[in-house]
Amino acid sequence: MPELSVGQFSLVANMLSLTIAAMAATTLFLWLCRGQVASPYRIAVTVSGIVTFIAFYHYLRIYSSWMESYTLADGVVTATGVPFNHAYRYVDWLLTVPLLLIELILVMRLSAQETFSKSVRLGTLALLMVALGYPGEISSDNSTRLLWWSLAMVPFLWIIFELFVGLRKAIAVQPLAARGLISKARYLTIFSWAFYPIVFLFPMIGITGPMAETFLQVGYSVADIVSKCVLGILIFVIAMKKSETEVTA
Amino acid sequence: MPELSVGQFSLVANMLSLTIAAMAATTLFLWLCRGQVASPYRIAVTVSGIVTFIAFYHYLRIYSSWMESYTLADGVVTATGVPFNHAYRYVDWLLTVPLLLIELILVMRLSAQETFSKSVRLGTLALLMVALGYPGEISSDNSTRLLWWSLAMVPFLWIIFELFVGLRKAIAVQPLAARGLISKARYLTIFSWAFYPIVFLFPMIGITGPMAETFLQVGYSVADIVSKCVLGILIFVIAMKKSETEVTA
Repeated sequence: MPELSVGQFSLVANMLSLTIAAMAATTLFLWLCRGQVASPYRIAVTVSGIVTFIAFYHYLRIYSSWMESYTLADGVVTATGVPFNHAYRYVDWLLTVPLLLIELILVMRLSAQETFSKSVRLGTLALLMVALGYPGEISSDNSTRLLWWSLAMVPFLWIIFELFVGLRKAIAVQPLAARGLISKARYLTIFSWAFYPIVFLFPMIGITGPMAETFLQVGYSVADIVSKCVLGILIFVIAMKKSETEVTA
Repeated sequence: MPELSVGQFSLVANMLSLTIAAMAATTLFLWLCRGQVASPYRIAVTVSGIVTFIAFYHYLRIYSSWMESYTLADGVVTATGVPFNHAYRYVDWLLTVPLLLIELILVMRLSAQETFSKSVRLGTLALLMVALGYPGEISSDNSTRLLWWSLAMVPFLWIIFELFVGLRKAIAVQPLAARGLISKARYLTIFSWAFYPIVFLFPMIGITGPMAETFLQVGYSVADIVSKCVLGILIFVIAMKKSETEVTA
């Protein structure tokens, strides 16, 4: 365990707590307001809330694990010997990353056939990406880390390709009012996801220790808020726009 | 208690936590989206969520029991002397296994008479199956284990017979759009259930110790996610399809 300063320990604790609140708040907003969108979009909005709910649960666990790993007393942070469980993040991603792609597909309201096939394809790729990243994450050997990072990049790049090329036709037939927003949701997904493989490389280029650990925990939390809460709200806005268009059409 | 490595202890802890999240997420999804299906199918969807809710509760207990049985500190896993409570799984199955068969019957929307008689018959068989397995599970004597395993296999095989022969006529009159999915739900049930009696045999063929315990806990969790969450979502999709068919018909 890295030796943290009081400021570093507290910054992470406060950031994790902020993320718990953001996930819970987004979940409740999405579930409470799902009745505001037309019936065909309610599943997309509900799933967006399911994603933030799952993350809320895991941030509770991550926060507890952080608080069990260190004690802060008399102005000193001491490691307790209980390891901080990094794996909760991976467990969360295993469930939420496929669902994030599915919420994007659901709000497009494609045919049942296309919804199913695209959800299965993108969901499987996302699952594979997270699963391939984990053996690298827990390894302290740089070449092992690089190997799994490279393997995980294959499904990651494939997902980007699917989002930009595979969905192009489907986006072109979306109502005009929602088209720009759906495209934005795609970019938001890609840019917030890019944070994870970049941070993953840090220990390999010598960025380690308490400063790196602090940056990692804060960075993952911010990336999770953007990719889950902000995307969830965006999905809700898209669903609102599409509901209006289709009612007046 | 088997002596576990850090990796084995953590893998089980993370898998149990993942299962808690999966059960809670499925429950909320099914309950929030029950309004999306036609009124006659809402009970089936609600019961599917009741099943995952019961499992959510038991996985909280199983996770706590696991964390109380061992401590992980300074890179070593130590048994605390508090035994891990295997029985929570049986208690869960006593309630959920009959309900899993009932949700399958409910979504078929048979006559009230048939729904009742099939639910009682299959529910009783499922209850009997779980109850007969338990005395074998807690025994360390191989011949006692084999005896109860064989007794539990009688209702298990009877259930398979009922699902494939007894339900054949009822499935044949389902709307075409849903028939394939209902048949898939049957296969999903049988295949995910087959995992339990197979794993039960492990200690009898000499597969014991920390590796076997890890496989057992992870395997049961995966089997529970497939047989409860995946089946629940499938029941929801069947209910959606049948709602559409019947409205347009």
